[in-house]
Amino acid sequence: MESDFKLFNKMAVIGVGLIGGSMAIRSKEIGLVDKVIGFGRSVENLETAMKLNIIDEYHRDFTHLKDADIVVIATPVSSIVHIVKQAERYCERGAIITDVGSVKEEIVKKIEQLNPKHIHFVGAHPIAGTEHSGASAAFGALFEGKRCVLTPTKKTDQPALTKVRLLWERLGAEVVLMEPKLHDTIFAAISHLPHIIAYSLVKCTNDMKDIDEDIMSYSAGVFLDFTRIASSDPEMWRDISLLNKGNLIEMIKRFEIALGEMKKAIGSSDGHRLYEEFHASQQARNKLIKSKS
Amino acid sequence: MESDFKLFNKMAVIGVGLIGGSMAIRSKEIGLVDKVIGFGRSVENLETAMKLNIIDEYHRDFTHLKDADIVVIATPVSSIVHIVKQAERYCERGAIITDVGSVKEEIVKKIEQLNPKHIHFVGAHPIAGTEHSGASAAFGALFEGKRCVLTPTKKTDQPALTKVRLLWERLGAEVVLMEPKLHDTIFAAISHLPHIIAYSLVKCTNDMKDIDEDIMSYSAGVFLDFTRIASSDPEMWRDISLLNKGNLIEMIKRFEIALGEMKKAIGSSDGHRLYEEFHASQQARNKLIKSKS
Repeated sequence: MESDFKLFNKMAVIGVGLIGGSMAIRSKEIGLVDKVIGFGRSVENLETAMKLNIIDEYHRDFTHLKDADIVVIATPVSSIVHIVKQAERYCERGAIITDVGSVKEEIVKKIEQLNPKHIHFVGAHPIAGTEHSGASAAFGALFEGKRCVLTPTKKTDQPALTKVRLLWERLGAEVVLMEPKLHDTIFAAISHLPHIIAYSLVKCTNDMKDIDEDIMSYSAGVFLDFTRIASSDPEMWRDISLLNKGNLIEMIKRFEIALGEMKKAIGSSDGHRLYEEFHASQQARNKLIKSKS
Repeated sequence: MESDFKLFNKMAVIGVGLIGGSMAIRSKEIGLVDKVIGFGRSVENLETAMKLNIIDEYHRDFTHLKDADIVVIATPVSSIVHIVKQAERYCERGAIITDVGSVKEEIVKKIEQLNPKHIHFVGAHPIAGTEHSGASAAFGALFEGKRCVLTPTKKTDQPALTKVRLLWERLGAEVVLMEPKLHDTIFAAISHLPHIIAYSLVKCTNDMKDIDEDIMSYSAGVFLDFTRIASSDPEMWRDISLLNKGNLIEMIKRFEIALGEMKKAIGSSDGHRLYEEFHASQQARNKLIKSKS
């Protein structure tokens, strides 16, 4: 019997990590596809994905993309354009290629410049993740109640967009459409900058060799939150930082100004100003929580 | 029947909030004291504490401190010295006064300058808390498995120190002794700086009025962590920032240097350097988690 959720025959997942693996798990669970095949750099990770029944088979050779009608590229952002270039020649006419990269403008632009004839590309970015990575970290419920941003342009094939939208909705996500440029500005602010800040904080406490005590051992609550963020995959965050460089540098500058104002208020013992700033942050959080509940 | 855990007859808690309230709850639960009386600015909060059975009675007048043998000052750090000054004249000879302030050097120094004749002061800082405040947020298990730093000096009465140490151990905490000055340096790095950073991040995204989208609504995971930190009690963090100003400004400067180096590596597309920095952060986190497990 066909599943009510079926959208594709064969899904190829290139990069069977946290995101790609979780997509595969849920797609198989709900019968969204008949079969999932995996590709990736690490045979060890692909073997893990096989053992965990995340994928049905894996290959090293893109000729096996032949009859996949949906190809998900879930590799580090720096490799996505190159992989589309390699993969599309093996895809059959009408196949849909989509990605899950956290940066969109550069990727979408370069793929549209490739002007692929056979396939339809739809850019996507699911707002989901943990600080863990690899197939063993994947789980089917990862996208439930999360947003997934799709970044179509005027060149995007509408039926392909509709199918990718359905794909994400069936995986449990709320789909939002957005221009690639706006996407990158927003995520520089609320995701890429906070990661750079967390890395910088851990760096600066690591560098405090002049204090004898092992200060890390006193960390609780808040500092542990920062170290958790700063333990995210270094390769992934290197690539995101470089690919969204312009927006990220702009956001770092804005943050430096805000921090500089705080430093000035503290330095001049301006308690009134500090209270106002801290109170405004608390209000912003309360508003945010209310809007999410 | 006397409890095996009994240490004091009557505990006075000045400031029945998250910390003071949680101390009262657990102290009563385990029979560490016979009675807990509360003091505070807000009658509404004291009434809440009565309803929740956190305290046995409350008073507005320090004459009721008369037969309290342990007085816990759990008010904002800026008021601690003043309250000790007001309270100690009503205490009986030998009473112990202790605090729970997150800043120690200035407080301990000023209280020792008061040179109180009747009472013994022991500075304390339990490393526990949530972003919630007030008596209604208090719970008895708050200190379980957490550290509590005591900051005795050469003027500290040894039997009083022993009793305060026992108090915290019986509340479930692991007690650490530390010089007030070292305490303030460490907590500027791992607690006060992260709070200022979180406040600054929320401020800078709040200030992005030039972006039409409600960017806060896209926040997930990491950004939500930052807003949670930045929703901490504004009055408390104003006072901590001002009282630990010297160390905090020093730490902000160190952080600015670390962030500046990250910005430079991103700006010059130095992927190798970024990977090294991010990887070192990940290693530091892994070491920390291993040491805590």
